[in-house]
This record gives sequence, structure tokens and C-alpha cells, in this order.
Amino acid sequence: MALQRGIIDDATRDPATAARGADLVMLAVPIRTMPETLAAMTPYLPRAAVITDVGSVKGWVVRALEPLLGAQMALVAVHPVAGKESTGAGAADESLFIGRRTIITPSARSTPDAIDRVERLWRATGSHVERMAPDEHDEVLARASHLPQVVASALAAALCGERVGEHEAAAYGAGGMRDTTRIAASSAEMWRDIVLTNRDAILAALGLFRGALDEFERAIRVGDVARFEEIFNRGRAMREGLK
Amino acid sequence: MALQRGIIDDATRDPATAARGADLVMLAVPIRTMPETLAAMTPYLPRAAVITDVGSVKGWVVRALEPLLGAQMALVAVHPVAGKESTGAGAADESLFIGRRTIITPSARSTPDAIDRVERLWRATGSHVERMAPDEHDEVLARASHLPQVVASALAAALCGERVGEHEAAAYGAGGMRDTTRIAASSAEMWRDIVLTNRDAILAALGLFRGALDEFERAIRVGDVARFEEIFNRGRAMREGLK
Repeated sequence: MALQRGIIDDATRDPATAARGADLVMLAVPIRTMPETLAAMTPYLPRAAVITDVGSVKGWVVRALEPLLGAQMALVAVHPVAGKESTGAGAADESLFIGRRTIITPSARSTPDAIDRVERLWRATGSHVERMAPDEHDEVLARASHLPQVVASALAAALCGERVGEHEAAAYGAGGMRDTTRIAASSAEMWRDIVLTNRDAILAALGLFRGALDEFERAIRVGDVARFEEIFNRGRAMREGLK
Repeated sequence: MALQRGIIDDATRDPATAARGADLVMLAVPIRTMPETLAAMTPYLPRAAVITDVGSVKGWVVRALEPLLGAQMALVAVHPVAGKESTGAGAADESLFIGRRTIITPSARSTPDAIDRVERLWRATGSHVERMAPDEHDEVLARASHLPQVVASALAAALCGERVGEHEAAAYGAGGMRDTTRIAASSAEMWRDIVLTNRDAILAALGLFRGALDEFERAIRVGDVARFEEIFNRGRAMREGLK
């Protein structure tokens, strides 16, 4: 489909064929399959190839890929913070990165030249590029992205098949439920690898969420209006700050 | 603003003036202020006036308003299941109800004639009208609407002001966080009354959510991939069923 749509010039399922002559390799596979994908290519890559990726977790990727690099190769780990719940070449969208953030997480094997090439590549998509340490990135994104995914998926799973008498509860949700659960339609394959490789930061983010949820539930249970409004308005302030 | 935009023909802050000659009264105020609003109008209303409302909770409204009705008045409690996070006449949208559900919850004081008038009124907005018992409505909507609101508000509150080093975590959310927290920008005044008047059903719905969240968190913590994927895909199936 990517060939038919003119998105790519060539395609192959053979790592050796893909590797020959490739001066820059962007790994866009589920995180835990990156090491085996790179390892299958390295014998055939140019000596000074630049390796980059688009995974949503960076500490694990850097630690897993660095030992696989040839002596002159460079690694520039990247997370373009943009996405949709749909996947595959049919969902490709050239405007996806415009105005969004792309986070580059330089590490011991990132040369200034390689960073510069990868930054220019991402700026060409219309994205804002910034730098962060890999583990700092993972803590920030655990809160900003991985936590909302876990919450949305748990909410959607809780409502799956839930009936009240003859009524399917989920069918009575309006725009609020549709928005709140939209990302629950994302790829399990991609998210499985994110939670497995960024587990500690995600569990810490879940702890934050549980703290707010517990406090909110207690205010509802005891009818503490002032506390309810305080928490509600904290959420409102956060949401209005996003715009 | 509603007068300027031509949405209404007349406006008053005086309940007596509003009541005189009104053959149908639609209460569109926060739920807990409905009884005092109706009580201020009843002395001036036509004897056979029909009272209706647009609140998101129905059992409490029916129980609170029925004792306030004149002997020949009728009550038809209604919940149009549609809304936005914005409020006020500036946010009015004539297409808001098209293709959405409007739930009528007939009770002891709903006459067939009054139900018929209110049903025709809502059909004229382009909405699908259906009937449900008041308490059944409240259980369904606790799951389909009130639960997503509580979860979205708690998530937004948890992330409010949350920093990792120099980075404001919320600023790094992409479309997923924006969608998941959109309804957190809703009116605290409206939601305060919903949670106070539908507390038990909301706490039960929160119990359902906590069950799914606990199970999901445990799968992440112990790295149980099969369990993670099972819960994730349950959420995915629910979300895809919404379309």
C-alpha cells in the first residue's frame, strides 16, 4: 500500500537488502523488536551508518541498541510525539508532525553530525525539535502519554459488554465517552512493548493518577463539595492550559 | 447574548414573569437548583402546565420535583444525551442533538399527553427519543457518562502542574492526552450536582473501573503480556463497537 500510494520508493522484507547502501536507518517497529531488526542489518550496513528510531520509550532503546552498533556507527534515538489510534500505510498523514514536538535523546553514541542530520530530517516534517536525556524523556512521557493510554484502555475495558438491564451502557455515551476512550483503539502490539520497556515510570505515573482518583472518589462519597470542586477545577485548569 | 443571537424571544430573571402563561417549562439549571426554581414559578403557572428538564440525573429530579407540582400539572423528566465542555449561549449549537439519543423517563406524574408533547419537541431537534425508568437511566448514565467525566477530571488533576525536572509533563501530551482530558474542561457547577444526586450509581461505576485498572496495572507490574493484551483488546473491542 505504501508503494501504491507513492509514500516509499522501494520495499523489502529482507534486512540485508534493506541495509546495503543505507546511510541512515530509521527503526519503526515495536520497541522490543528493534534489537533483532538492527542486528539483522548491521553486517550489511555502510560503516558510518546513522541509526535512529521512532519509539515512544528511549532509555531502553538506547541501552539495547548501543551494543549492537559497528565501531563507526552513530545512534540518535528519537520520539516524534504525534500519533493516531490507526496504524499502517493506509493511515499515513503527511501533516501528522506539523507543529508537534519531536524529542531527540542524545546518548554516548550520538555524534554531533548524526544529531544534526536527524534534527534536520525532523524539522523538514514541520515538527519542533528539542533534546532531552533518555530517562528524563521516559518519565515525562509516562505521565503525558503512557498514563492517558493505560487509563483510557482500562476505562474502555471496564465498560466492554457492561449492561444495565437490557441496555448496553457504552451505547449511551456521548462525545465525552468517545473522546475519553478514543486511544483505546490503538495497537496492542505497540503498547505492549511500551509498557514492558517503561514499566517503572508508568507505575509511578499510575500512582499519581490513583492519588487524584482516591481523593476525588472520597469527596464524592462523603459529599465534600468544596473538595470536589477543588479537584475538578485543578483538572479544568490543567486542561485549559493545554490549548 | 441569547437575545442578540436570536436564540430566544424574551428573557427575564424573575420566576413569576417567566411562569405567567407558560404552558411548558423546561428547567435547564444545575440539578440541585431545580426544586427552588420550580417552586418559585408554580404559583404563577397555568394550572395544567407541563414541567420538563434536561438534567443528567433523573431519579433524584423526579423525586424532588413531583411534590412541588400543582394538582393538574404533569412532569416529564428528560435527558438529552449530548453536550460539550463549553457552556452558555455563546456555545449554543443547533446541530448538537441531531442523531443523538434523548431519554425520557416517565414517572407517576407523566400524563400520556405531556409525554407526547415533550417527545415531539425533542424529535424536532433531530434527536432519537427513547424511554427508560428513571433509576435505570441513572445506572446506565453513571457508566456511560458520569464515570468518563470523573476519570478524565482525575487524570487532568493528577497532571496539573506536574513537572519532571524543568519539563511540564502535560505540555508533552499529544492528541491522546488532549482527547482523554477534553471533558475535564466542563462546568464544575453542573458536575457537582450530578455527582451529589447520582452518588451511589457513580461509586458503583467507579468500582467497575477500578477493577479493570487494578487488573491492568498488575499485568504491567508483573510483565504478564497475555493478560495485558487481553485487557487492552477488550478495551479496543469496546471502542470499535462505539463507531
